[in-house]
Amino acid sequence: MSITTFHPPSRTLMGPGPSDVSPRVLEALARPTIGHLDPRFIDLMDELKHLIQYAFKTGNALTMPVSAPGSAGMECCFVNLVEPGDKVIVCQNGVFGGRMKENVVRAGGTVIAVDDEWGTAVDANKLEAALKANPDAGIVAFVQAETSTGVLSDARALTALARQFGCLTIVDTVTALGGVPVRVDEWGIDAVYSGSQKCLSCVPGLSPVSFSAAAQEKITSRKQPVQSWFLDLNLVMGYWGQGVKRAYHHTAPVNALYSLHEALLILREEGIENAWQRHQYHHQALRVGFAAMGLDFLVSENEQLPQLNAVVIPAGADDAAVRSRLLQEYQLEIGAGLGVLAGKVWRIGLMGHGCNQKNVLYCLGAMDAVLGYMGAEINQGAGVKAAMDYYAASG
Amino acid sequence: MSITTFHPPSRTLMGPGPSDVSPRVLEALARPTIGHLDPRFIDLMDELKHLIQYAFKTGNALTMPVSAPGSAGMECCFVNLVEPGDKVIVCQNGVFGGRMKENVVRAGGTVIAVDDEWGTAVDANKLEAALKANPDAGIVAFVQAETSTGVLSDARALTALARQFGCLTIVDTVTALGGVPVRVDEWGIDAVYSGSQKCLSCVPGLSPVSFSAAAQEKITSRKQPVQSWFLDLNLVMGYWGQGVKRAYHHTAPVNALYSLHEALLILREEGIENAWQRHQYHHQALRVGFAAMGLDFLVSENEQLPQLNAVVIPAGADDAAVRSRLLQEYQLEIGAGLGVLAGKVWRIGLMGHGCNQKNVLYCLGAMDAVLGYMGAEINQGAGVKAAMDYYAASG
Repeated sequence: MSITTFHPPSRTLMGPGPSDVSPRVLEALARPTIGHLDPRFIDLMDELKHLIQYAFKTGNALTMPVSAPGSAGMECCFVNLVEPGDKVIVCQNGVFGGRMKENVVRAGGTVIAVDDEWGTAVDANKLEAALKANPDAGIVAFVQAETSTGVLSDARALTALARQFGCLTIVDTVTALGGVPVRVDEWGIDAVYSGSQKCLSCVPGLSPVSFSAAAQEKITSRKQPVQSWFLDLNLVMGYWGQGVKRAYHHTAPVNALYSLHEALLILREEGIENAWQRHQYHHQALRVGFAAMGLDFLVSENEQLPQLNAVVIPAGADDAAVRSRLLQEYQLEIGAGLGVLAGKVWRIGLMGHGCNQKNVLYCLGAMDAVLGYMGAEINQGAGVKAAMDYYAASG
Repeated sequence: MSITTFHPPSRTLMGPGPSDVSPRVLEALARPTIGHLDPRFIDLMDELKHLIQYAFKTGNALTMPVSAPGSAGMECCFVNLVEPGDKVIVCQNGVFGGRMKENVVRAGGTVIAVDDEWGTAVDANKLEAALKANPDAGIVAFVQAETSTGVLSDARALTALARQFGCLTIVDTVTALGGVPVRVDEWGIDAVYSGSQKCLSCVPGLSPVSFSAAAQEKITSRKQPVQSWFLDLNLVMGYWGQGVKRAYHHTAPVNALYSLHEALLILREEGIENAWQRHQYHHQALRVGFAAMGLDFLVSENEQLPQLNAVVIPAGADDAAVRSRLLQEYQLEIGAGLGVLAGKVWRIGLMGHGCNQKNVLYCLGAMDAVLGYMGAEINQGAGVKAAMDYYAASG
């Protein structure tokens, strides 16, 4: 097999993640590797913990990046907090709530399902009914920003309800963090995980996590050991814990952590509140553009994530052919539908570094052109114009 | 907290890993991120599978990199192959055999321990006795290259024994791969894992794994689901499997995979047999150098790994002070002892890209200087001279 050095094409990444990565982050990634117990690396770890605390708006001591993607961050939360026999209420309104259920079952827990339609937010009334019907449930888990649909659920309200009934919460903020408000301490979230490759615009492969004192208490007082050695926080704390002499657990992904440090530094330089506003601002431009083209959003406006926009595939458009042509002719990646939404929606990401005017206009223009060529039922030319009017009026 | 862009110091990494990373690999790492389902990325995945097969000397279809460090690769092997109630013979002669035992227990299996002294190879006679005494054991696990001691065990002989008794094998080649022969197909190993940051000289964070047809059969016919969702190969195969339309399981660490592709390409360009020889060649130089200085190896020569050299800390030397001075004054990282060997040995790595004449001479010179200053009992000046004589004679 003839193999040579890989030179990736220069894509514009507007799918559900990974998102476009800043050159600053790629530069950080490529700096020389040093040891995972080097005193200078220990300093970096302290700074990184501080930056993750900043992003989550938490003072939690147990805050760190899991050395693996968001799915492992999810598993880290569940295997550490769920013991065999535990009852866990899982709210599902998309793919990732389903993955949470899998995690509960594999950790030996029992799932109490609170299901909502894909494309709508988690219904607090249903959660309340489940909490009332299951006084022995100890944990509530839900996804704040469903990557499969682009729906934002009310994490503040759901967490408050869970607390009212004495439950700990596990909250998925993989797509949320950096794009919409996540206030771990103010809302009282107990366990939270995210991913590096969405609105943080870092390379994929890391999962920031944070645990409240109550969660940490449950983890340290477990009756049975955590089923995963790699993700056992009782062991990982010897390396990432607060005030410990950092001892080897596993070899940290040193270079990836350089890049996360830089990505979070960029976020802090902008100010996370400004980042939230920027996501809203450019989302509105994309929204008016798609509306002018005659494309519908899957999700109602009050539940829409600015950073992830599911639009209904219009009549006359071939899902795969459109995406392929956008990729080949425009180097533009948009996302396909997942699960029951496959073939029904496209998912357009406006995340982190990639959430800007240039990308909004480029995406509208490229989709307008490709859908036009292919005879889909849209108002050709109207999308870019509407978005430019929006920018002109609001700039 | 004042935080700015992190600029790591330029270390020479001669500990137990991470090892020095080639500029080519760092350049590959920093290329623009593309999507994990991009057709060009799928091509890269096919090449990467081929390159990992090359390194392991296997044609196994189920060959891929786990998206996390070697410890997760280990866990991937155990949670997929061990079902609750399974009896697993684990040979332990250092830290990592102990970690294997932990993995068996956490997967619900029963450990049959075959223990050897730290610093000696796994004793095939003891394994044979354990196999005879436990005809119901189904799996034998051992570490080919113990990172905690620098001992090489005879993977060919141990695997042959296990097969003779109808057992599958799980073999740790984290430190072995690329530094000493690993012949997965010829020896008949069923499950094998390694790490990116040792003799492959890639950045830390990935774990190449490979599974035989028999192992794959056991995994697909499990009675109980794998306890880890993230590491469940029945699911991961949908993304990394042979001949599948690659479907999303988790977001692959795209940039890290660019770098592993480049690191393995460098290995193939050199030729893996040449890499094995290079490790032996420079190890001998280090050996004659240390011998001339009067430093003893922990391990007897016939069981010594060329890529990881545990030397006994000489009288009059303060372990931590010596390592700290090497790091501060010479930017040279060597490894401390682990577990029962803490404070007793140093671990000097000669791995992959860092296994070269320059590093051998630099290490001998720096250690000579620092040990001399600190009044340790060594023959000052003799080490570098002896190694240079070796190079002159063999060059």
